Amino acid sequence: MSTEYFRDISKIPYSPSAGAKDVLCFKHYNAGEVLHGRTMEDWLRFSVCYWHTFCGTGADPFGSPTLHRPWNEGGSAMETAKKRLHAAFEFFTKLGVKYYTFHDRDMSPEGSTLEESNRNLDEMTDLALELQQQTGIRVLWVTCNLFAHPRYMNGASTNPDCHVLAYAAAQLKKGLDVAKKLGAENFVFWGGREGFLSIYNTDVAAELKHMANFFKMAVAYKDKIGLKCQFLIEPKPKEPCKHQYDYDAMSVIGFLKHYGLDQHFKLNIEPNHTTLAGHAYEHDIVMASVFDMLGSVDSNTGSPDLGWDTDQFPMDIRNTTVVMKTVIEQGGLQPGGLNFDAKVRRESTDLVDLFIAHIGAMDAFARGLRNAVRIIEEGFLDGMLKDRYLSFRAGIGQKVDEGRATLEELEDFIKQNGEPSVTSGQQEKYESVFNHYL
Amino acid sequence: MSTEYFRDISKIPYSPSAGAKDVLCFKHYNAGEVLHGRTMEDWLRFSVCYWHTFCGTGADPFGSPTLHRPWNEGGSAMETAKKRLHAAFEFFTKLGVKYYTFHDRDMSPEGSTLEESNRNLDEMTDLALELQQQTGIRVLWVTCNLFAHPRYMNGASTNPDCHVLAYAAAQLKKGLDVAKKLGAENFVFWGGREGFLSIYNTDVAAELKHMANFFKMAVAYKDKIGLKCQFLIEPKPKEPCKHQYDYDAMSVIGFLKHYGLDQHFKLNIEPNHTTLAGHAYEHDIVMASVFDMLGSVDSNTGSPDLGWDTDQFPMDIRNTTVVMKTVIEQGGLQPGGLNFDAKVRRESTDLVDLFIAHIGAMDAFARGLRNAVRIIEEGFLDGMLKDRYLSFRAGIGQKVDEGRATLEELEDFIKQNGEPSVTSGQQEKYESVFNHYL
Amino acid sequence: MSTEYFRDISKIPYSPSAGAKDVLCFKHYNAGEVLHGRTMEDWLRFSVCYWHTFCGTGADPFGSPTLHRPWNEGGSAMETAKKRLHAAFEFFTKLGVKYYTFHDRDMSPEGSTLEESNRNLDEMTDLALELQQQTGIRVLWVTCNLFAHPRYMNGASTNPDCHVLAYAAAQLKKGLDVAKKLGAENFVFWGGREGFLSIYNTDVAAELKHMANFFKMAVAYKDKIGLKCQFLIEPKPKEPCKHQYDYDAMSVIGFLKHYGLDQHFKLNIEPNHTTLAGHAYEHDIVMASVFDMLGSVDSNTGSPDLGWDTDQFPMDIRNTTVVMKTVIEQGGLQPGGLNFDAKVRRESTDLVDLFIAHIGAMDAFARGLRNAVRIIEEGFLDGMLKDRYLSFRAGIGQKVDEGRATLEELEDFIKQNGEPSVTSGQQEKYESVFNHYL
Amino acid sequence: MSTEYFRDISKIPYSPSAGAKDVLCFKHYNAGEVLHGRTMEDWLRFSVCYWHTFCGTGADPFGSPTLHRPWNEGGSAMETAKKRLHAAFEFFTKLGVKYYTFHDRDMSPEGSTLEESNRNLDEMTDLALELQQQTGIRVLWVTCNLFAHPRYMNGASTNPDCHVLAYAAAQLKKGLDVAKKLGAENFVFWGGREGFLSIYNTDVAAELKHMANFFKMAVAYKDKIGLKCQFLIEPKPKEPCKHQYDYDAMSVIGFLKHYGLDQHFKLNIEPNHTTLAGHAYEHDIVMASVFDMLGSVDSNTGSPDLGWDTDQFPMDIRNTTVVMKTVIEQGGLQPGGLNFDAKVRRESTDLVDLFIAHIGAMDAFARGLRNAVRIIEEGFLDGMLKDRYLSFRAGIGQKVDEGRATLEELEDFIKQNGEPSVTSGQQEKYESVFNHYL
Repeated sequence: MSTEYFRDISKIPYSPSAGAKDVLCFKHYNAGEVLHGRTMEDWLRFSVCYWHTFCGTGADPFGSPTLHRPWNEGGSAMETAKKRLHAAFEFFTKLGVKYYTFHDRDMSPEGSTLEESNRNLDEMTDLALELQQQTGIRVLWVTCNLFAHPRYMNGASTNPDCHVLAYAAAQLKKGLDVAKKLGAENFVFWGGREGFLSIYNTDVAAELKHMANFFKMAVAYKDKIGLKCQFLIEPKPKEPCKHQYDYDAMSVIGFLKHYGLDQHFKLNIEPNHTTLAGHAYEHDIVMASVFDMLGSVDSNTGSPDLGWDTDQFPMDIRNTTVVMKTVIEQGGLQPGGLNFDAKVRRESTDLVDLFIAHIGAMDAFARGLRNAVRIIEEGFLDGMLKDRYLSFRAGIGQKVDEGRATLEELEDFIKQNGEPSVTSGQQEKYESVFNHYL
Repeated sequence: MSTEYFRDISKIPYSPSAGAKDVLCFKHYNAGEVLHGRTMEDWLRFSVCYWHTFCGTGADPFGSPTLHRPWNEGGSAMETAKKRLHAAFEFFTKLGVKYYTFHDRDMSPEGSTLEESNRNLDEMTDLALELQQQTGIRVLWVTCNLFAHPRYMNGASTNPDCHVLAYAAAQLKKGLDVAKKLGAENFVFWGGREGFLSIYNTDVAAELKHMANFFKMAVAYKDKIGLKCQFLIEPKPKEPCKHQYDYDAMSVIGFLKHYGLDQHFKLNIEPNHTTLAGHAYEHDIVMASVFDMLGSVDSNTGSPDLGWDTDQFPMDIRNTTVVMKTVIEQGGLQPGGLNFDAKVRRESTDLVDLFIAHIGAMDAFARGLRNAVRIIEEGFLDGMLKDRYLSFRAGIGQKVDEGRATLEELEDFIKQNGEPSVTSGQQEKYESVFNHYL
Repeated sequence: MSTEYFRDISKIPYSPSAGAKDVLCFKHYNAGEVLHGRTMEDWLRFSVCYWHTFCGTGADPFGSPTLHRPWNEGGSAMETAKKRLHAAFEFFTKLGVKYYTFHDRDMSPEGSTLEESNRNLDEMTDLALELQQQTGIRVLWVTCNLFAHPRYMNGASTNPDCHVLAYAAAQLKKGLDVAKKLGAENFVFWGGREGFLSIYNTDVAAELKHMANFFKMAVAYKDKIGLKCQFLIEPKPKEPCKHQYDYDAMSVIGFLKHYGLDQHFKLNIEPNHTTLAGHAYEHDIVMASVFDMLGSVDSNTGSPDLGWDTDQFPMDIRNTTVVMKTVIEQGGLQPGGLNFDAKVRRESTDLVDLFIAHIGAMDAFARGLRNAVRIIEEGFLDGMLKDRYLSFRAGIGQKVDEGRATLEELEDFIKQNGEPSVTSGQQEKYESVFNHYL
Repeated sequence: MSTEYFRDISKIPYSPSAGAKDVLCFKHYNAGEVLHGRTMEDWLRFSVCYWHTFCGTGADPFGSPTLHRPWNEGGSAMETAKKRLHAAFEFFTKLGVKYYTFHDRDMSPEGSTLEESNRNLDEMTDLALELQQQTGIRVLWVTCNLFAHPRYMNGASTNPDCHVLAYAAAQLKKGLDVAKKLGAENFVFWGGREGFLSIYNTDVAAELKHMANFFKMAVAYKDKIGLKCQFLIEPKPKEPCKHQYDYDAMSVIGFLKHYGLDQHFKLNIEPNHTTLAGHAYEHDIVMASVFDMLGSVDSNTGSPDLGWDTDQFPMDIRNTTVVMKTVIEQGGLQPGGLNFDAKVRRESTDLVDLFIAHIGAMDAFARGLRNAVRIIEEGFLDGMLKDRYLSFRAGIGQKVDEGRATLEELEDFIKQNGEPSVTSGQQEKYESVFNHYL
């Protein structure tokens, strides 16, 4: 690595006593510290995303690029791509994060033909493999960008033109090969154009079937090449489409079960997508976990008052605490992780803002983890919750819980026992106790 | 029937030439007129709901009752209930609607014990049966009110206390008996309290399992008593709960498939609930239909700028046209129908407002039906749509459509055929053509 | 006071070391502790609201009352009203709060005529005055309920029928008399029915003029009787109306300035209303403060994923910190305060839940105050902010700031100085620094 | 004009009998037809926008450009700009629209210095003036793009750096000169970056003052150069900022009145912005009209279920009817008009889609106009409305209406007249009658 892009930063220190000014310290995240039987690093499995952090230009629908990164300036597309990859590994190393995520087309430029694109990808992933081996940094997940190229404007696997679907399939095949080559622990499907802009010009039934068939082909090819990673679907309700078929966790679960695909996929939940679907921040993480389908998390946030994906760095301690509590309760996210699908604001134009943003978010999750561990280890909240559902542990309640009761029996129970007594839901008590741990 | 509540109205005439002033005419709805092979009455299967139209008081969270109906004044609870039932049948008859829907507790007052409630229900349904036989009016669906009584404040089938679940089961058993007695064509489950107010005090996994077990008991009892009606679940995203498990069509489909219940239920879609879930008006109707799960429709509307259930009478012709197009394309809604789960505003205090509102909404749906028939019979929009998906009817497209293709084959196809050509999605053309039929 | 309603609670202790279980302790709020030159009590000026806490029944649009308070059971309307008042003062005293707020009709039952209502109010306020004198508890603000009675269904001051407006005026006159009698420090106008359900049946121009004239009459009468309190308007965007004229802070400011009323009113901001208007939690508090119009705050919260007023107790520490920072920066809220326009959930049926909820919220605001004081006293964030706007303190910037520059001069400046340099907005740095203080 | 870009279209015919297939006909818009005393052209004053229709590339935050227009390909920036201008005038002429709107930077490329940008603009506007004179097409409004260039990322007139504000001022000065040169009938200010992304790094009070001072400089310069056009502010609540100061009509009115600017500005209302602010489609048009501040309309639409600006072509007949009713009632929009700030979907890649979209929207507004004229000329709805407010035309009502009543008088009125009678709001009747005209 000849050029050093982040000259001012060597390695971020951990300093719990650092004051407000020291935004280039971790104050809460201490990678090797053991909490609740694992290191913080193992619980959190942080990952940096390639697209926002190294490819992002700051362009938005109303403005031109503002982020001019030294690694993106000058040279041919492939030369730039290599500089960018070096910059990325420098960043991962200095930040002290062990995982990264990328789309095929982030890392490697699209050529004028599929063959050229694939050759580019071969060359770039050779370099990535080399850098991975040098640094020990690994791929949390790979994904194929099946939404940005104009050919995908009307959908990839749901395109009305099978020729486009075929192109997506060809690109996916290569993406799966890349996942194997780089030892990716997961492979993500985000269907940004799998949905519709207008119900008038859409045959929803046909499109859903084609999407399912596309996934089945992916599963078959994965098996064929012996790719071991976890497949993940990332729900998003809308944007860029008016409606995306993978609307939220339950929509995807319904789809997967309908088409017999639920054994082959888990979910990658992005809370900014969850809030766009009208749910609370943690909702899809909790729902996916309940259905044993939570595979990974795109740790970012939106603004609750905005109706589009802002992909902000997550900074809210209450939210990170709830997420980490869910993660601990399901025994961790592995092979998934917490991927920062987050971008610095287009006004945050300094290179150091990239570090500040990641450190702030990692610290926010580290505080969340520390809080969640205290909640779980003290057991007070869980005790309140267990008491609340006590009636299902014996007698008629146990029969109901185990699916052995009938309406007739339950009617008899009421005839004998009459009206149930009133029990406070105690929401404010739960909230106050929860606040105690923040 | 001694008392006549709606003295000024005998039967609503059909008068296509009536002007704006004649809001007590049908201008578009002509029950017996045959369109696209069926009478309008058969396509539309209108139903009047009991709760809003005969029980509604106009109270809202910020105001006292405004609607003082003569049938609700004076006498004991049972006497009032009977007056209300007579008023209802008078209304159905004069309006010319063949179906009605009700909750157990709308028709018949809750007693101080389950036994008393059941006796009340027996007595009231005896009268209802008699009035049905006299008038030929039928029950589109029955449902149990498992949300209004304080005992259900923390849920019915998802209550943390099994005693409450048992009460709900006992009430449901009677509700199913009533459905059989009155020949209801459907039975609806709306889980207004099946969800949570706070994630902190909720065991989501336990609650979902209990809800599924509750439905399984209902299916078993239905089979046992030989009840032939269709079971329907009505999704709603939120309100009164912060989150309801039956969030939207896809959530319910996912739930049903997960618990092996999908053969036993279809969906009753209410567009006002659909818009509260962040979807377009017709969305859940279309999605349910695509998954062959559309059983019935609660024909109402919300205001897109309001975040709660306003249950307004549906008056938007574009919306009714899209709904009826979907209904015709799936061959009708039977045994479901279009139930007006809609209420006059609390400021619409005149008795005649009840007629005006129903007529306006029936006419809006009649216009929608007429428009949809024209669209379908002219075939121009469908032709555009078929052309759009033509590539899936032969060759590699057909293999994909039938699930017989592989990634490798599709890659070969691209190697031979290269980049797909660009095809306009023509949204504005579809919109303009659609507008032509309104 | 013969009956003691809250037997288990004498006075809430302050105990910073109390653990999660001790939800009946203040851990952060210590009334007499001096922070940044004032006692916590003086900064926070907490107030308990009468309507939710003593009149609330737990009824919602889908359910019956769940909250059966001993003071609301048995006896005539006036006897109950007196029991309720005694319960309220017992609650204020035990909680240790110095202020309360009420609507005329919360405290005193509506009679069958205006005269009877007024006599009731005279009798009840005699008792209230006596209890105020005994306890030292004071009225933060009074308001007239001009929305709940059916006569106001189509508006009070904006009713299409002047007879209704006249009734509202008569009720308001008495309300102002009561404010004087009880020494209320503020008088609030919340126009829950001042708006419209449908644009079709509304003459917006006429209604706005009538509302302005109504306010002018109130100002005139206030002057006439020598009432010294601050007049406050409370914005709310919608609910119960589809649109309320007092939509948000800026709408009200625009209205007041248009009708020449801005010298006579300030704003009472309720964050739950602010979020319903599509703004961030603190938005209207900040905007009102910037326009020197922030008079008081209804300290509650909604759920960002819900579209109606939930009036929850505020528990989010980030939010309370931002609010208190704004309050300190404008030198406090006096004569306004932090009124808990918040209700326990209808499932929180225990009497002790009322204490738990208020304590949790007071502690959340106390934490917010402590955080805000640290932010302000350390001065690091403010220093960053001052640096950011430095260019307006001298030279051409100062001329712009003072309104003395011209386009021509600024064009000359650019011709001499060319393109401005790029300056990072550093949002993530600000967020991280802010998080440091939470 | 050497190149003809739209070869297949000569002039769009008016053909009321054209069927659904003929999407290149006007079926409702007949420019010269007189309705309610004016030609349709005069009532509607349609305008085509330059940015979407001639500069739009179809890029979105998740995808690359899809719209490759022949006039945007090849040649230097200035050569392309001229081709684009020729294409635009060809389009205006063939579509038969008399007005266009543009940003300075749409028409003319930004140079490397202000001087170069201004020279470019001089050259381009020379050509524009020539084409205007040849065709009779006029400028409805000009605006300066003070949001897309990176220098404006933190705001233009509200930038924390006065150097940026100065640049904006210099650009604005030239924009006003251009408006005069081209005879623009209006000049629009849209403050896309005048707001904030984060409250933490923002001094709202300073920014609002600077924005007001900026507007004052514009007013002064306008007077100085004798520019006669109407100044318009276009509200938008958010996007690209988290919050924009010009949130909605009432916010802008409040701002203008606070800073004494209300005599110098009217509003340009864009319904897609109105719905993003949480209002009904027509809301800000109605409110602005009521305050005599409606200057012009950006006739587009969003999707009510989407939270960002989609700038779709308006196709909803109910909406266009309400808008045109308001426009007629205030006597027309002149010197404003109906500007199609609307873009074809990025999937609508054919050149002819540009025509189809404009024709569909113009026809939708023409239907709206025809409906509104019928409503107004029949007078039935207005009669209902006048009756509703009758009580304010005489007696005590008239005194209230004229601001001459007092609380004491109104109390006396109630003491004499007692409780008002109940009057139905008849919302459903109004809706049904309105539907009659659609």
